[in-house]
Amino acid sequence: MQSLNAPLVGKPGSAALVATPALVIEIEALERNIKTMQAYCDGKGLKLRPHAKTHKSAEIARRQIAAGAIGICCAKLGEAEALADAGIDGILVTSPVVTAQAFARVAGLNARLSDFMIVVDSAAGVDGLAKAAAASGKVLKVLLDLDIGLHRTGVMPGAPAMELAQRITAQASLSFQGLQAYAGHLQHVESHADRKGRNLSALAQVSVMRDLLAAENIACPIISGGGTGTFTIDAEARVFTELQAGSYVFMDKQYDAVKGENDSALPFETSLFVHTTVISSTMPGLVTTDAGLKSFATEAGPPAIASGAFEGANYFFFGDEQGGVMLGGAERALAPGSVLRCTTPHCDPTVNLYDSYHVVDGEQLSAIWPIEARGRSA
Amino acid sequence: MQSLNAPLVGKPGSAALVATPALVIEIEALERNIKTMQAYCDGKGLKLRPHAKTHKSAEIARRQIAAGAIGICCAKLGEAEALADAGIDGILVTSPVVTAQAFARVAGLNARLSDFMIVVDSAAGVDGLAKAAAASGKVLKVLLDLDIGLHRTGVMPGAPAMELAQRITAQASLSFQGLQAYAGHLQHVESHADRKGRNLSALAQVSVMRDLLAAENIACPIISGGGTGTFTIDAEARVFTELQAGSYVFMDKQYDAVKGENDSALPFETSLFVHTTVISSTMPGLVTTDAGLKSFATEAGPPAIASGAFEGANYFFFGDEQGGVMLGGAERALAPGSVLRCTTPHCDPTVNLYDSYHVVDGEQLSAIWPIEARGRSA
Repeated sequence: MQSLNAPLVGKPGSAALVATPALVIEIEALERNIKTMQAYCDGKGLKLRPHAKTHKSAEIARRQIAAGAIGICCAKLGEAEALADAGIDGILVTSPVVTAQAFARVAGLNARLSDFMIVVDSAAGVDGLAKAAAASGKVLKVLLDLDIGLHRTGVMPGAPAMELAQRITAQASLSFQGLQAYAGHLQHVESHADRKGRNLSALAQVSVMRDLLAAENIACPIISGGGTGTFTIDAEARVFTELQAGSYVFMDKQYDAVKGENDSALPFETSLFVHTTVISSTMPGLVTTDAGLKSFATEAGPPAIASGAFEGANYFFFGDEQGGVMLGGAERALAPGSVLRCTTPHCDPTVNLYDSYHVVDGEQLSAIWPIEARGRSA
Repeated sequence: MQSLNAPLVGKPGSAALVATPALVIEIEALERNIKTMQAYCDGKGLKLRPHAKTHKSAEIARRQIAAGAIGICCAKLGEAEALADAGIDGILVTSPVVTAQAFARVAGLNARLSDFMIVVDSAAGVDGLAKAAAASGKVLKVLLDLDIGLHRTGVMPGAPAMELAQRITAQASLSFQGLQAYAGHLQHVESHADRKGRNLSALAQVSVMRDLLAAENIACPIISGGGTGTFTIDAEARVFTELQAGSYVFMDKQYDAVKGENDSALPFETSLFVHTTVISSTMPGLVTTDAGLKSFATEAGPPAIASGAFEGANYFFFGDEQGGVMLGGAERALAPGSVLRCTTPHCDPTVNLYDSYHVVDGEQLSAIWPIEARGRSA
């Protein structure tokens, strides 16, 4: 039998203290990632508002804010409500909302937080938010969501954006704060040069829009956006006042692939893993684990095995409840009970499958953190 | 603009009572599915032990048992613990466990339930279960898990299975109850004839094994297995004493594809949907919804749109938080706030993303049921 890869985190056998599959944070790497991104933004004179859709955790949000972040982003109202319930203030909701029920929930969040903001991309959205804010008696801060090529949300730059900005400034219950723009379609372009060129060109639309608004005496004190895959390019573009990167705290298999080419552009470490146990080993060269497609997000393929198996072993999804590992040779074996440490294929939706993080500090399980906003997609 | 498909369930506007994305059960279809499967099993003299990994819900388990099921199956110990906490008895755990911690949890479940059983597929598993059961002072019922071609868990029929069966019968703290076999690799074979031929051939190994054990005076009062995709074939094979089908309660896009060819072999209706709201509509022929890859399991592709959009409209995943719908023509539009009713791509792992079911009875939201075992994969 060949030797195994790097040993599991923790003392031999310590992984078995935790029932698997378990979502594990290596705290030292997480802390380094938080510090590295904050120091980078500080050096560029940029504010950092990390996206909490990645971690959905009040404890991690508190650590990001303690390190210097001005607040957090949330993708959904439910996520914002869960983190507000857990004591987080300073929240930007980065998706537009459109229903009467949602407008009322926005006004509720705005009333209870000292610093709350949401994006908007439609006239109906502006009118609904204005009405709910007026009824609540507290002015609501809004950003205009610009579509710079992803075509997911946001209004087109130019006349449509100008018209919507003017509609916002006409509302006494709304306070126009500026723009949001996210080049989500360019976060995982593998060539750094290509990623840079396309991103700078997309972001040029934002500065043009800012200037057009300024010519109409509409100031943009906030321009918010950017992501982990483009954060140095986002900074160089000199258009954002604040960055929304999220995945840098954890990293994953997809960002590792982007990182491959240009490490200095993504100076982050993998801090998030799934530990899984071999539960069956009856076929030559193949074992079955306890982590299947209910334990990993699957849209980016299977996880990478970081340690615990052989060089060249490959993980595959073996149904809802189990994973399979082709060990890379019929003579290779892993006994039932062996624990594998896996890098997630895509961190955000994998986190969304778990109720808590098991936090490992060096060789010890040091804490269990709840994932307060897990499943809060509504 | 072309006319829309069938209207949404509920009175106009009633879907907006619920924040979306929401997991919705249409109760009449669910009840018909439960009755249809039970009546089929009753007619064949087969017992039904539905797999609760599909629904993870005590309320649905209670309804299945009230209709005549002898109990339920669970995939994981955590799932069994959550449903036992919610008052369910009569549980078979269908995956082997291998750690000391897991053996102790099995003994705990066995001690608190009047009817509990688990599968085993290794000598270490037999020894660990026997020791934990002996320490608990209560005999533990076990099934030998047979590998009939899926190669996921289970011991090979023939000498390996015989050896393990004898190891079980030698333990005073274990009670050998029989065999489990699951042809998971054959559930979604699209041609009914092909599915039948391959399944009968796989199941022949089970009856051979039963006869070999009988020749050694080891009786198999229970032979448990089968699935929604093969349930009529499983019954015809006359080897099972009980069926473990799960997905029949809900159905999904994958089973709809299997059903396509031979409706009488899958006489079930879709009873589970995800409702999602259009949140952005600024591009011609394209809208963005609030349900992305945190709101659907993605390994079986995007959801099917059951109603609320145009004939020929196609859903795609537009990142973690959003879906996109190509409406099928630049002249087509859906206003923000429009609600789509989607068939899940794969029901089991989609259910695992939600904390509760919104239950619709005719035109009314009639109940909200917790999904007690959601996320209990450990």
